[in-house]
Amino acid sequence: MEGKVESLWEEVRELSLGTTVDRLHSPPTPLQFLRDFVSQNKPCIISNAISHWPALSLWPTPSYLSAALSSSTVSLHLTPDGHADAIVPHPSHPSLCFASAHVQPTPFPQALDLIRRPPNHLVAYLQQQNDCFRTEYGELESDCDGHIPWASEALGCLPEAVNLWIGNHLSQTSFHKDHYENLYAVVSGEKHFLLLPPTDVHRMYIKQYPAAQYSYSQEKGEFRLELEEPERYVPWSSVDPYPATGNLKQERLKFPLYFNGPKPFEVTVKAGEVLYLPSMWFHHVSQSPGDDGCTIAVNYWYDMQFDIKYAYFNFLQSLPCRSIDDPTTPESACEEDSGPIASPNHLNRRFSGDESAKTNVHDNV
Amino acid sequence: MEGKVESLWEEVRELSLGTTVDRLHSPPTPLQFLRDFVSQNKPCIISNAISHWPALSLWPTPSYLSAALSSSTVSLHLTPDGHADAIVPHPSHPSLCFASAHVQPTPFPQALDLIRRPPNHLVAYLQQQNDCFRTEYGELESDCDGHIPWASEALGCLPEAVNLWIGNHLSQTSFHKDHYENLYAVVSGEKHFLLLPPTDVHRMYIKQYPAAQYSYSQEKGEFRLELEEPERYVPWSSVDPYPATGNLKQERLKFPLYFNGPKPFEVTVKAGEVLYLPSMWFHHVSQSPGDDGCTIAVNYWYDMQFDIKYAYFNFLQSLPCRSIDDPTTPESACEEDSGPIASPNHLNRRFSGDESAKTNVHDNV
Repeated sequence: MEGKVESLWEEVRELSLGTTVDRLHSPPTPLQFLRDFVSQNKPCIISNAISHWPALSLWPTPSYLSAALSSSTVSLHLTPDGHADAIVPHPSHPSLCFASAHVQPTPFPQALDLIRRPPNHLVAYLQQQNDCFRTEYGELESDCDGHIPWASEALGCLPEAVNLWIGNHLSQTSFHKDHYENLYAVVSGEKHFLLLPPTDVHRMYIKQYPAAQYSYSQEKGEFRLELEEPERYVPWSSVDPYPATGNLKQERLKFPLYFNGPKPFEVTVKAGEVLYLPSMWFHHVSQSPGDDGCTIAVNYWYDMQFDIKYAYFNFLQSLPCRSIDDPTTPESACEEDSGPIASPNHLNRRFSGDESAKTNVHDNV
Repeated sequence: MEGKVESLWEEVRELSLGTTVDRLHSPPTPLQFLRDFVSQNKPCIISNAISHWPALSLWPTPSYLSAALSSSTVSLHLTPDGHADAIVPHPSHPSLCFASAHVQPTPFPQALDLIRRPPNHLVAYLQQQNDCFRTEYGELESDCDGHIPWASEALGCLPEAVNLWIGNHLSQTSFHKDHYENLYAVVSGEKHFLLLPPTDVHRMYIKQYPAAQYSYSQEKGEFRLELEEPERYVPWSSVDPYPATGNLKQERLKFPLYFNGPKPFEVTVKAGEVLYLPSMWFHHVSQSPGDDGCTIAVNYWYDMQFDIKYAYFNFLQSLPCRSIDDPTTPESACEEDSGPIASPNHLNRRFSGDESAKTNVHDNV
């Protein structure tokens, strides 16, 4: 089985993906986009697709944003170390858990200050993934397009959610996938993506982790991490692609399929560029700020097709895959893809008939 | 493994394919076609897409065809029973082989007569699959379109081959797949397709069969079936979906995954209709003649994308799948998909740089 799964990783690269992500120097036609990228589940970076956005010149000036959103209260995500929706040591047992950020309603100007001038003990990230750009940040709507026209035409729909992301170099997003076609436009600074195709699911070492929640006490200036009650489990990738130097050897031994397999696609998306991040691709995201001290991006989530590719993925994921380099590891299948229903802070796209579920449900890995 | 493969068969139907093939009552736009069918690897039948073809009114008159092709010599495929490129008893051993038709260059009017008024001892079928419509049947080119415009725009290319098919109710094409996107237009009579998606590859019981060739002696009025020399093996489906009544029980026992699994999609394509037969779908074809005594069709083969879907397929095919109903059968993986290179009588699309290879190479199962 292991050799066959490894051949799959190689074949999808040889046949289709190559070794680097394609770059387009102008927006594709809807047909090109659909044929060459969406249909093939293949990422690309597009330049000169958002050059006309006023946001590109306006938003890198913090005073512009603070003035435009002077009376807005936004959902600020707080963690001690910039790792939200991440696997961290369990608060009470000697094991790991899936930790979500403390979400603090905050006046926007104050939130932006916290991001641009991070204090020692907390990392702030504006990353509410519930269509926030069209709700909390409605005042900015005229600064960019409400959708990506060639993508909307290709996909036959408007985005189901548009999100704004404002963070600094301390915030990272751990490996996960979304059940959306994603158009990710960077407005200020740079976003650094590590990408793995869905074929590589076994390399992510997805396991069930108990959900936990940070809560931040402003008085004490301290975080507490508490397990959710009732207990809830979240399937999430165990892999940290950038372990601390001292842990590297140990992590390589724990996750050989990740560290010894084909290198993930490394992509830096600069201000003014758009990444097409195909549905079901695993991605890890970090960022470098622009001169304004933060990284700003807008992403558009479009419905994906739950077609033969998705069925193949679920089948692949259900297969056990013994760690190739560690024959002592017991065989275990990955978690079945239970669909886009899991942890807080992403939009629930699949059960969108239930509007109440839309505001706070995370796509699972 | 078996349960997981069965779940895949079910899931692709539940998520995407449904239980019947979609019908469109007018040609789709290129975007619709690409998004709703090609990208999803999902078949459909399109009405009113070829209503403007002069062929629809001209070809059902045999005298028109015979006059237009009065001086053409065409490749007529002869078999004793209408089963060409089929698994038949081995000529000398008590086993089976993959038999190709005797191909007889024949004046077209005589070929058409043989099809319309079949003698007792042979079945004639015009089915040369080497872009024959644009070569042997060049005189008919103005009777239909040289390509399917919305498909060409969607797929971003012109057809690599256009083939003409003229047969009668005795000719069948056994289960196989092609490495092409296929637009199949019926001009006279009806074509009956059984379709299975590529996810169902294990249900086809693909095995290696020694290639054999019919040769027909006009003098003796007899066929001989001889193994090819040097020996050559062709991977082909073992399943006959319509076994003789006396064999049905035995065939059901031999091929339980086929006979006990989800029913194949049954599609009848009538004169004036077009079937989109997606790449890699297994198909079995039989036909009913029109008033002219024959079934006439033109098909357009377009390049397929060797993308993540193809990689997933190859992976799936490489997995062993024990017959669920017969635990005594030893586990064995299907033949690996060696690409579109195997037996005579299809076009070799993947190695099309070699023009000499184009004329006579079959896509394998």
